[in-house]
Amino acid sequence: MSIKHAFYAQSGGVTAVINASACAVIETARRYPDQIGKVYAGHNGILGALREELIDTSQESHEAIGALHRTPGGAFGSCRYKLKSFEESEAEYRRLIEVFQAHNIGYFFYNGGNDSMDTALKVSQLSEKMGYPITCIGIPKTIDNDLAVTDNCPGFGSAAKYLAVSTKEASHDIASMCDNSTKVFVMEVMGRHAGWLAAAAGLAARQNGDPPHIIVFPETPLNKEKFLAKVKKTVDEEGYCVIVASEGAKYADGSFVSASTTVIDSFGHHQLGGVAPALCTMIKREHGFKYHYAVADYLQRSARHIASRVDVEQAYAVGKAAVELAVTGKNAVMSSIIRESNAPYRWSIGEVQLEEVANYEKKMPMEFIDDDGFGITSVCREYLEPLIEGEEYPPYLNGLPRFAKLKKVLVEKKLNDSFDV
Amino acid sequence: MSIKHAFYAQSGGVTAVINASACAVIETARRYPDQIGKVYAGHNGILGALREELIDTSQESHEAIGALHRTPGGAFGSCRYKLKSFEESEAEYRRLIEVFQAHNIGYFFYNGGNDSMDTALKVSQLSEKMGYPITCIGIPKTIDNDLAVTDNCPGFGSAAKYLAVSTKEASHDIASMCDNSTKVFVMEVMGRHAGWLAAAAGLAARQNGDPPHIIVFPETPLNKEKFLAKVKKTVDEEGYCVIVASEGAKYADGSFVSASTTVIDSFGHHQLGGVAPALCTMIKREHGFKYHYAVADYLQRSARHIASRVDVEQAYAVGKAAVELAVTGKNAVMSSIIRESNAPYRWSIGEVQLEEVANYEKKMPMEFIDDDGFGITSVCREYLEPLIEGEEYPPYLNGLPRFAKLKKVLVEKKLNDSFDV
Repeated sequence: MSIKHAFYAQSGGVTAVINASACAVIETARRYPDQIGKVYAGHNGILGALREELIDTSQESHEAIGALHRTPGGAFGSCRYKLKSFEESEAEYRRLIEVFQAHNIGYFFYNGGNDSMDTALKVSQLSEKMGYPITCIGIPKTIDNDLAVTDNCPGFGSAAKYLAVSTKEASHDIASMCDNSTKVFVMEVMGRHAGWLAAAAGLAARQNGDPPHIIVFPETPLNKEKFLAKVKKTVDEEGYCVIVASEGAKYADGSFVSASTTVIDSFGHHQLGGVAPALCTMIKREHGFKYHYAVADYLQRSARHIASRVDVEQAYAVGKAAVELAVTGKNAVMSSIIRESNAPYRWSIGEVQLEEVANYEKKMPMEFIDDDGFGITSVCREYLEPLIEGEEYPPYLNGLPRFAKLKKVLVEKKLNDSFDV
Repeated sequence: MSIKHAFYAQSGGVTAVINASACAVIETARRYPDQIGKVYAGHNGILGALREELIDTSQESHEAIGALHRTPGGAFGSCRYKLKSFEESEAEYRRLIEVFQAHNIGYFFYNGGNDSMDTALKVSQLSEKMGYPITCIGIPKTIDNDLAVTDNCPGFGSAAKYLAVSTKEASHDIASMCDNSTKVFVMEVMGRHAGWLAAAAGLAARQNGDPPHIIVFPETPLNKEKFLAKVKKTVDEEGYCVIVASEGAKYADGSFVSASTTVIDSFGHHQLGGVAPALCTMIKREHGFKYHYAVADYLQRSARHIASRVDVEQAYAVGKAAVELAVTGKNAVMSSIIRESNAPYRWSIGEVQLEEVANYEKKMPMEFIDDDGFGITSVCREYLEPLIEGEEYPPYLNGLPRFAKLKKVLVEKKLNDSFDV
């Protein structure tokens, strides 16, 4: 088998552990020098391939690559770029093949979510048709936890841990203040379509009455009266109320709760408000309760300082497995996580055909949400808890975590023409 | 000297380490059984004394008290209750003395900020006048870092560390996405009057061009044109822009930036918007940049999972010193932190008269803010950096930090009348 170089790209929203997958791909590829030459990383993901901006990872020290294991964000840059059908995106496919061929790239490792798995599938099919077959392997990643088949997705566990820990801590705070001050705390979490992250924050509660008292899922249309009644009941019984709200929370008519408020500046310009202010505003108006709210935003998906050890290990494992799949002749597959058992939690790595995961969005099972629609069930807890297990702290210097610093040297271009993208 | 009981109360906004001070008071008091009997903690702070709701900490196990060292929030509850002059608050003072006398309390340890130091001072003066002298010792606490004389305030260092770490991590995230997605990230931090916390987030930058690129301090009136120009310049040069904004940011006319936007719900009701949406809205309108923002809120002051080791140690030390001051006959003083040297950072505990700290609000020195008004100086960095040094992780179970669980047994009341407060 002739040696071919590999192309690795990060795709979509980044996470606290996607670089651990990158680290694994680069470190594992080194073990197969008879098959894989260099690992080129796309500068800003697949756009790097289209623009012929390939980062030569062999120019980085072993220490720098090793440091990726503990570094959040996407070290090589990412993008949300979905290739369509061959007819619609013919120029892009031709360009990809052209770049791959010019740089003797025979392997394509695509680290992303279900849209990316679709792209990887298309590239594997079309590269074959176009006479330059590429081995395409998908590496799962998403804080949304919505890739099909794989039991869970790298990136999710750490965001889940961050939210559960933060919810527990913030609850201690408001519990201290509630006698004569703040009665309501809302934590806004990511999740446009699925409540996985909101559910994870629910792990902070260990027994009845524990915060968070109310979780607002995108899956459960928000019944305002029911919600406000539960807030009141909780404040009456517990003294305060902690609410975790998904950014994708909706009303029964399908409209987003966040869209029910607008932010107007002094010039009269409008922006969509967030979910947290919307809920707080309705609570203040109905009950007069003083509130506080936090919007976790990027903090929940970049919090490598409190990453889940299970998540870090799995992110590495799927990257390692992807290379192993490639060198054993597999193609058009994604490395996946298999849950072998719950107690104790045991997992292994498997493979799944890209067709099975491309474009599918795994929904949160309805049995994970309890009957009143505002909490998680024990089945949900059983699923989630192992994913936030263990701590994997980065090293610190001067009070701050030490992350990787890469040179990011670009490979010399071989093609004369540029590609506008 | 006869044995008297002690009364300990937490006051004002709680922090990640105020319970470490509580732990210190209780553990240190045990060492002086000939002088201090039990330590009663006020249920919800000084309101507990007024309501005769005294928590008997001797009913807690040694392990539970020890666990306070790693527990955020205020374990005994807190309040913002400022006693005024004797004339205005005579009933409260008489009630306090009555409760203290009934329960043989001779020591009052008040753990709070400058308002609380004023209350402690008043109680020490008035208790003497009223024929039942109480030894009153202040224990410093505030994330605002604005108590006078003491070099820094417990609670601040951990919030500072949390913000610096989070800013660094979120910056890695947006740096990955900025080529074709989000260009601007705003982190909203606490600080109505002072920019200490905003400045601390600036520690994430190690060299020119590092994020955060812009810090909006309450001390520096926001010049909109200058701000927007710097945002544009930063995006042009770096590809993205990270902004840290204090909730107390103001315009030159003194109005709050957060008040320049209102949140309007579907019923037409208004609430003040936050600083982050206000800044993002103006950036979007002027430059069209896609943005994200996080509102740290309670997360920054409850993040015991990433507390600063220096902060935890100092919070304990001031609590311990307060008891030692009391048993050595001191009165109307506050334990304070003295910075002995910078490199290496060395500190010790001193004492300061309550008159010197009561009501004073220490401003951030103007030489801590650089010339263009959007960054910190090296002098500021030199001051701040040691305060975020070291990690002091709590133990974990099932992925979550283990915090103290107290029984909080109330002492039997001795007084017949109640006090409405």
